Amino acid sequence: MPTTSTNAVPPNDSQPHDARLHNSRLMKAMRREPTDTTPVWIMRQAGRYLPEYMAVRSKVTFIELCKRPELAAEVTLTAQRVLGVDAAILFADLLPMLEPMGIDLEYQKGEGPVIHNPIRTAAEVDRFRELEEVSSLQFVFDAVKLIRRDLPADIPLLGFAGSPFTLASYVIEGGSSKNYLTTKSLMYRDEGAWTTLMQRLARSLVRYINAQIDAGCQAIQLFDSWAGCLSPSDYRRYAMPFTKQVIDGIRPGTPVINFLTGNPALLPLLREAGGDVIGLDWRVDFAEGWRTVGYDVGVQGNLDPVSLMADLPTLRSRAKAVLDAAAGRPGHIFNLGHGVFPEVPPDNVKALVQMVHELGAK
Amino acid sequence: MPTTSTNAVPPNDSQPHDARLHNSRLMKAMRREPTDTTPVWIMRQAGRYLPEYMAVRSKVTFIELCKRPELAAEVTLTAQRVLGVDAAILFADLLPMLEPMGIDLEYQKGEGPVIHNPIRTAAEVDRFRELEEVSSLQFVFDAVKLIRRDLPADIPLLGFAGSPFTLASYVIEGGSSKNYLTTKSLMYRDEGAWTTLMQRLARSLVRYINAQIDAGCQAIQLFDSWAGCLSPSDYRRYAMPFTKQVIDGIRPGTPVINFLTGNPALLPLLREAGGDVIGLDWRVDFAEGWRTVGYDVGVQGNLDPVSLMADLPTLRSRAKAVLDAAAGRPGHIFNLGHGVFPEVPPDNVKALVQMVHELGAK
Repeated sequence: MPTTSTNAVPPNDSQPHDARLHNSRLMKAMRREPTDTTPVWIMRQAGRYLPEYMAVRSKVTFIELCKRPELAAEVTLTAQRVLGVDAAILFADLLPMLEPMGIDLEYQKGEGPVIHNPIRTAAEVDRFRELEEVSSLQFVFDAVKLIRRDLPADIPLLGFAGSPFTLASYVIEGGSSKNYLTTKSLMYRDEGAWTTLMQRLARSLVRYINAQIDAGCQAIQLFDSWAGCLSPSDYRRYAMPFTKQVIDGIRPGTPVINFLTGNPALLPLLREAGGDVIGLDWRVDFAEGWRTVGYDVGVQGNLDPVSLMADLPTLRSRAKAVLDAAAGRPGHIFNLGHGVFPEVPPDNVKALVQMVHELGAK
Repeated sequence: MPTTSTNAVPPNDSQPHDARLHNSRLMKAMRREPTDTTPVWIMRQAGRYLPEYMAVRSKVTFIELCKRPELAAEVTLTAQRVLGVDAAILFADLLPMLEPMGIDLEYQKGEGPVIHNPIRTAAEVDRFRELEEVSSLQFVFDAVKLIRRDLPADIPLLGFAGSPFTLASYVIEGGSSKNYLTTKSLMYRDEGAWTTLMQRLARSLVRYINAQIDAGCQAIQLFDSWAGCLSPSDYRRYAMPFTKQVIDGIRPGTPVINFLTGNPALLPLLREAGGDVIGLDWRVDFAEGWRTVGYDVGVQGNLDPVSLMADLPTLRSRAKAVLDAAAGRPGHIFNLGHGVFPEVPPDNVKALVQMVHELGAK
């Protein structure tokens, strides 16, 4: 049954391949249609916990892996296959899209991303260029094409990008941050410069995301990984309008998962920003979270990622608690509340996927 | 008017000094009695942003400052005096109480606290000794006596301690942590060892806190600085019972501020754990936070600490937004949502205190 949500996928049964994607577990759940069991994928499923990933990663740097389509495709496809998850997610990073915007980005060993020319004043905002056209990010779209070519016909491919606030905080802080002192200082002291920066990011994101869709992605996840540092009134004023601008600009027909971590009090506003599915981290009770965002959207999440460090009976009971809270309501996509940690035993991730498929069976 | 809360201060007008404390702004607000204006103090008010603090701190290490009562008293008293706040808070740290419990603690330059013998297994829990008596922490109580002797008679002195979960996470991780992987792994894999550890912490905290009260503190704040990493069901199971045990063990007649940061979804459970006043960080809307914890307790908070980096008109409008949300309801103690940052201009902190007293006047 088609939904009323803005980005719901219209039926397209003319091509068998498209029909199988359209009727896949994940795409059905995005439309809140019943599925045979609960679909599941794992944030950062192609990651360092996985020996198959490490085998590829050991030969190249992180940024090379992002920029070599055949390698990005390989780790994406392998993770989907070995885990048996219901979606693949493009292997990529949030930040390379900033390079053609004038950002000097480096991934330092063990340090994470560093931006050598952070933007901290109104004058510096002027040199932050909007992404007018996306050809310099062709490596991303080439990876999408390779992945889509080789993925099983019933497995959707998720594209993704950072939400404007999260990208802005990287650009302003010059890397990850504990307190977002510099970001919020600019926000509070120069709202004009802030708005200019965020609008450039939002327009750039729309182009980047739509090019991912054109290349073959079936759905999109937005990651607002750092917006949890904002109060509700600050999120509403300084972040939400730009996330909404991105979602409103995404090509109709492609469902959007809108994910934010770090502050359950923002959930009503996250919903207001848009999306067909709202991502719940683990800080909120699942049933309470779905009630809060409303049953007219789907939800994704919300197992604490550290659950994967537990023994299997404990992991099972924790997964079951989430599924019990979902109570079989169509529109639930099982996932962790945030990305899987490198320390996690890969067998536990595989076991979790099986548990969800078994326990979620209707 | 006395309240029904368990730790409310009974009137004691027999001694003029006690009467002035009893009728101070802060103590009245803790009992949800009307005050002439909104009381205000600043978490970490004796901290690195303050030149008077740095002048003392430059001569000794951080741990020496904690352990030399005359210096701890000096920075405590100076901060209260130069800011004009309605409370002093003992200068101390959460972790030195762990040393007599068998923890090998070091404050490394620029690195924060490091514990050289973290506790990670059931066997290691056995060597974590309960604090049977508090004489090895006499430096804390001596500081309390010195401060109380020299504080103005209408300025209460707050004692404080970490909540059991926050202390446990330090003990297990060996320092601060991003993901609490080791803490939660122990919690999930060996609940018996976890419970033993938490009970020892809770009983030790009761003795430590009551000794602060005996030495001269008028109220106590508990800091659960890291519990925001827990889901509501995990907080209820693994943290709340032990926080409740501490609060229930605090000498009756001394009000308790129960503070947690990082997860607004825990507020109903924080309330359930106890306390006369519930601390709100900045992630939650003030009015929504007070409604959530109930109007039969006071609230403290909740200005985003980065607001102090803004220009004064912005700071004023942000402070006013909190006061407007409190709507003059008795029982509001103005504070930041977490500690003041070292980068903040001290004049802004002084200006904030004046703004609150002016805007909060009844």
